[in-house]
Amino acid sequence: MNAYLIQNLTWKEYQAKAKDGILIIPAGSTEQHGFHLPLGVDAIIASNFALRVAEKVGGVVAPTLTYGYKSQPSSGGGPLFPGTIDLNGATFTSLVKDILTEFLADGWQKIFILDAHYENEAFIAEACDLILRNPKNAFPKVLLGNWWDNIDPDLLAKIFDEVEFRGWALEHAAITETSLMMYFAPELVHQELSIDESFNPPTYQCFPLHDSLLPSSGSLYTARSSSADKGKIIVDNVVEKISSFLTKEFSELS
Amino acid sequence: MNAYLIQNLTWKEYQAKAKDGILIIPAGSTEQHGFHLPLGVDAIIASNFALRVAEKVGGVVAPTLTYGYKSQPSSGGGPLFPGTIDLNGATFTSLVKDILTEFLADGWQKIFILDAHYENEAFIAEACDLILRNPKNAFPKVLLGNWWDNIDPDLLAKIFDEVEFRGWALEHAAITETSLMMYFAPELVHQELSIDESFNPPTYQCFPLHDSLLPSSGSLYTARSSSADKGKIIVDNVVEKISSFLTKEFSELS
Amino acid sequence: MNAYLIQNLTWKEYQAKAKDGILIIPAGSTEQHGFHLPLGVDAIIASNFALRVAEKVGGVVAPTLTYGYKSQPSSGGGPLFPGTIDLNGATFTSLVKDILTEFLADGWQKIFILDAHYENEAFIAEACDLILRNPKNAFPKVLLGNWWDNIDPDLLAKIFDEVEFRGWALEHAAITETSLMMYFAPELVHQELSIDESFNPPTYQCFPLHDSLLPSSGSLYTARSSSADKGKIIVDNVVEKISSFLTKEFSELS
Amino acid sequence: MNAYLIQNLTWKEYQAKAKDGILIIPAGSTEQHGFHLPLGVDAIIASNFALRVAEKVGGVVAPTLTYGYKSQPSSGGGPLFPGTIDLNGATFTSLVKDILTEFLADGWQKIFILDAHYENEAFIAEACDLILRNPKNAFPKVLLGNWWDNIDPDLLAKIFDEVEFRGWALEHAAITETSLMMYFAPELVHQELSIDESFNPPTYQCFPLHDSLLPSSGSLYTARSSSADKGKIIVDNVVEKISSFLTKEFSELS
Amino acid sequence: MNAYLIQNLTWKEYQAKAKDGILIIPAGSTEQHGFHLPLGVDAIIASNFALRVAEKVGGVVAPTLTYGYKSQPSSGGGPLFPGTIDLNGATFTSLVKDILTEFLADGWQKIFILDAHYENEAFIAEACDLILRNPKNAFPKVLLGNWWDNIDPDLLAKIFDEVEFRGWALEHAAITETSLMMYFAPELVHQELSIDESFNPPTYQCFPLHDSLLPSSGSLYTARSSSADKGKIIVDNVVEKISSFLTKEFSELS
Amino acid sequence: MNAYLIQNLTWKEYQAKAKDGILIIPAGSTEQHGFHLPLGVDAIIASNFALRVAEKVGGVVAPTLTYGYKSQPSSGGGPLFPGTIDLNGATFTSLVKDILTEFLADGWQKIFILDAHYENEAFIAEACDLILRNPKNAFPKVLLGNWWDNIDPDLLAKIFDEVEFRGWALEHAAITETSLMMYFAPELVHQELSIDESFNPPTYQCFPLHDSLLPSSGSLYTARSSSADKGKIIVDNVVEKISSFLTKEFSELS
Repeated sequence: MNAYLIQNLTWKEYQAKAKDGILIIPAGSTEQHGFHLPLGVDAIIASNFALRVAEKVGGVVAPTLTYGYKSQPSSGGGPLFPGTIDLNGATFTSLVKDILTEFLADGWQKIFILDAHYENEAFIAEACDLILRNPKNAFPKVLLGNWWDNIDPDLLAKIFDEVEFRGWALEHAAITETSLMMYFAPELVHQELSIDESFNPPTYQCFPLHDSLLPSSGSLYTARSSSADKGKIIVDNVVEKISSFLTKEFSELS
Repeated sequence: MNAYLIQNLTWKEYQAKAKDGILIIPAGSTEQHGFHLPLGVDAIIASNFALRVAEKVGGVVAPTLTYGYKSQPSSGGGPLFPGTIDLNGATFTSLVKDILTEFLADGWQKIFILDAHYENEAFIAEACDLILRNPKNAFPKVLLGNWWDNIDPDLLAKIFDEVEFRGWALEHAAITETSLMMYFAPELVHQELSIDESFNPPTYQCFPLHDSLLPSSGSLYTARSSSADKGKIIVDNVVEKISSFLTKEFSELS
Repeated sequence: MNAYLIQNLTWKEYQAKAKDGILIIPAGSTEQHGFHLPLGVDAIIASNFALRVAEKVGGVVAPTLTYGYKSQPSSGGGPLFPGTIDLNGATFTSLVKDILTEFLADGWQKIFILDAHYENEAFIAEACDLILRNPKNAFPKVLLGNWWDNIDPDLLAKIFDEVEFRGWALEHAAITETSLMMYFAPELVHQELSIDESFNPPTYQCFPLHDSLLPSSGSLYTARSSSADKGKIIVDNVVEKISSFLTKEFSELS
Repeated sequence: MNAYLIQNLTWKEYQAKAKDGILIIPAGSTEQHGFHLPLGVDAIIASNFALRVAEKVGGVVAPTLTYGYKSQPSSGGGPLFPGTIDLNGATFTSLVKDILTEFLADGWQKIFILDAHYENEAFIAEACDLILRNPKNAFPKVLLGNWWDNIDPDLLAKIFDEVEFRGWALEHAAITETSLMMYFAPELVHQELSIDESFNPPTYQCFPLHDSLLPSSGSLYTARSSSADKGKIIVDNVVEKISSFLTKEFSELS
Repeated sequence: MNAYLIQNLTWKEYQAKAKDGILIIPAGSTEQHGFHLPLGVDAIIASNFALRVAEKVGGVVAPTLTYGYKSQPSSGGGPLFPGTIDLNGATFTSLVKDILTEFLADGWQKIFILDAHYENEAFIAEACDLILRNPKNAFPKVLLGNWWDNIDPDLLAKIFDEVEFRGWALEHAAITETSLMMYFAPELVHQELSIDESFNPPTYQCFPLHDSLLPSSGSLYTARSSSADKGKIIVDNVVEKISSFLTKEFSELS
Repeated sequence: MNAYLIQNLTWKEYQAKAKDGILIIPAGSTEQHGFHLPLGVDAIIASNFALRVAEKVGGVVAPTLTYGYKSQPSSGGGPLFPGTIDLNGATFTSLVKDILTEFLADGWQKIFILDAHYENEAFIAEACDLILRNPKNAFPKVLLGNWWDNIDPDLLAKIFDEVEFRGWALEHAAITETSLMMYFAPELVHQELSIDESFNPPTYQCFPLHDSLLPSSGSLYTARSSSADKGKIIVDNVVEKISSFLTKEFSELS
């Protein structure tokens, strides 16, 4: 039984943590991740990062948002791929808004939304803005972050030792996500099925989407040279970085 | 790795099942369940039932809806309890509608929503109606059911051998849910903390809610005489019953 | 001229009652009710109960909600029947929310919504919750109730003297509604057209709906043995019960 | 029993009329109408006009929309008056849209919405446009009209024999509405309470509204010289005119 | 560089005006205006009036709303004409609501919405009502007006010297709008293309719209006898009238 | 009179272009742009780019969206700055959806949305997806692009000759926008007021926003070394690039 997950706590145990504790809400998706990774990659990565941050800062973790906003062709493959089960923007924003409203009503002062699906961010930020735009007090405070913006730039050289880094937008089902999955859930990685995709996204978006603007596998870039070790390097670095700014932003209160 | 969960499948594996397979979507909640059960009871019960039905009928299971519609005082304890994290009706309906729309777009013809949180049903039905009201064809077909309506009435005597059955509305955190949890996830049951609640719900609803219309523990009825054995009896019976009507309703197609 | 109906009052007369009075809002539907009852059954029953409760407790009655939420197959026959004119959930919730907001702005402290269409309740409760979730004060207070939950269980034996009681869900266009109509509006009852329906609803819902899950007449159960006398028995009992809890819940204020 | 009202019909009787018949939906409001008229004026006038038109053209009448869009200060008195119970624009549009959608699904080809509350019209038209903008066929066809635009201009001299006609916007609780009420429901008219209001509305709107932009009684103009005879003159003329264009617009089909 | 337009100001310049200044928001449309006038007529007229009022009262002008609510057949020609690009009611109301909310958050106390597209008004008023219904204070105050309600009645004789005035609803692409355009933007007027339309609008609305209820040119009435001189007469008069009531309504504060 | 702007065309002129022409919709914002640039920067840049692309490809330009989605702290300064007048996500998406729906109904097959406000893109894409997700045909086709993704990477060295390029997110009111304004509308640039801002955005977002996460001027990076010449270089390059992909994507049809 993992006592960091609020779903495993009774309401009395949960209530005891709300006043001073840190609540982490992982946000993922159900989305294609190439030939070699499963649909749950973003949810699995978000959940695992959240648990490690919770351990580090003494927080608890809410149920993961397993359905997210729409996958985009140039950063996730888009809606033409089977298994990409996305929410409309209004729905996803309402979902986040309702959940936040409820947690705030329970007295949480320090909430962190840990996102692992890039396309979620504009709509999570919209939800947060709708609730907390007018700063009545410094707290309650909701922070929103992801893992890729919290990797030390110096680390990139270690991760992209064999393959050139071409920007985070292409890291869908590529080296970083594959390495993280090899570290967090190796049994779900079929590295033998990955192919050396190297997709050049267009400089514009097209509606309706057509196939020639998409990679055939669903990966946006090669996963070659991925490893659990690289996954661990990323995790250690990101957990450290996130814990550090959580501590800073949340310290004004306690 | 559980291969019944679509989050563990690649998009190619998932795609192969969509045409003829059965998709089961478990719907739960994050809600107080008395002193002795955790917040995740409904989600855990829904997920476990879904897996067993999937095994039986050869289906797969979508990510569980872990946040649901609002807990009601007379069947779940209501919003005054900490840890009850509920969605507004419009949000929950949109959530179900978007997900169903995406699964139908992927070609699924046979979908079953397995609910374990009573209050969800009106809003899930609304979502289904908004999508599938006008019967163009017999398929795609979406069925919606729960576990309590699919228990053989004869079985009630076995389950309520020490305690009188007072209706399903009161079975929140009581014998049946406690027994199911003792069977599915015994490590999450703190039977020693349960108390002998026997709540008489009013014949009306009151807004705003006040404490005198609520049980203090959050349980609506006693959990005394619960057991993993009773949990197993329920599970075996319900899985049989659900599998049976899924087979009947979905057989017209294949 | 019925002076219990606010539609018959000038704004000055209305204003004089708002501060201390009780306002009753009847909620019905426009829905098929078998071969022998008219589409307006729920609205007619709600309006008549409301008037009698108003007389008893000294309240006034708002215009009846004559269009309601969607009829369900297992408790009302559903959308396949002509004459069933239903609102979407979001619309019905907004309708109730707007009306309540306006009455509260006029200063009413004691409001009772008297429902006679089962399917309305989840969406009326949603509207009330959206307005009054956070209890600033004990008042204004909105109560929501129906007639069937307020019948004395002992009375059932008298009503179901010839026919077995099979649960309220089946009482659509059956003995209780027919008896109430024979008492309230006998000229609208075509008892000679009623047939001995005995519908076994499925243990699940199906979308799109198909005919084999529906009774052919639209009644869910027999209306045999209905009578105006039985109608009167129900009315007397329910008006007494409702008046009693209105007095209790609303007494804290005046 | 009034057999022109669909609420009094069984679903079989209703169904028989849908294919070729004309359905009339009266739209009113719950709104202050000065010292001498009740809150229900618009609903009562709409219902009565609808019944007479139905008799004339052989149609049936749906339940009246008794709550309407917001009363405006310069044509109805506005929200500061008690007893003015208004819907938001989005709600009222959804209400009309849902009802129309249901009636169209039942097969009605010829629908007339008869409005007696000026402020309703923009939002009813919006609902109709959202459903029927793209003309697939000439039918189904929905017409929207009111009584004042269908009075013969020559008749105005007879009605305004003692008092000058100052435009329809000021005819709120004034001569025409008072005369119609004296004809339709004389027991609800307290002519002795009416005062000689003569309101000069501003050439702009102001938010928030302030008292100096409003008449104190709620009437916008005098009701002096009203009479049941004038009411009858209006009714005869309007029913004739409406029946005439209904026949013309709906004749293309049958 | 026009310093009356806020789009030309830096945020520091803008901020300096918010506390005591008057903000004018012009509301137009993109809509057909007959054979001789361009799609932008309403936006151009609104913008030009706004600038002149701003000069007169010392205010500033926000970016014009160039897309408006739906053109109606009897006052603007309606949706069947190409180039009529309209917003749904809910969208237009949200647009106005969001913009007003932001301006109010910046501290503006005196806002005037100057409309030049009749159909906009119900939906702008709805937006204002949703924000400012409950009068907490006299300020902030939002006024809503147009140019036609602010023309001195005596002036009509001068403008309609050759042609009879048949009501404002028909003044779409007719004498007044043509004259205003000849004054504000003569290079956009193709007077040689105008035809002598004289449209008799029906006394009801019809959905779906059919051609026989529309003028062929899109003008609702003749533009004959239009002139820049008449345009100037209107402008001088309206700017005077609007400035006068702005001064009166806004003077209570400063 | 600029004949590339549809607001200057009559409906007959407009209609003649819809069948084969290209329609360009510029999307901007009303947002602070530092001490030296006006609130209208994004709208002005979008409009000017649109006109030049229209000249090049023979298209026309719709009225600019002058109010956009919310400015974000790390790419635009955010809501704490006066003059930042933003729409909620749902509003902006509806606005784009309604306009596109209308243009498509007028027969346009080739539409390009040219964005100059980064934060708009997720919500414009959402609108396009809601309308055109299911590819019935290759056309109508809507493309969405901006100017910064269409700058030749080789050009960056010329523009950032004195100052290091630190990513597009920081180019708010910095060298590229200032240079574009010096080229398009030099009279609106107060270069003397610009200061050498060099903002380090946090790796997370914070709600409510606090000042220490913001640059004081509103610029995110220095505008030093900006020039009209650099503006021209960008414009020439971007217009070429955009025209090129418009021609390619739209050529399949004509």
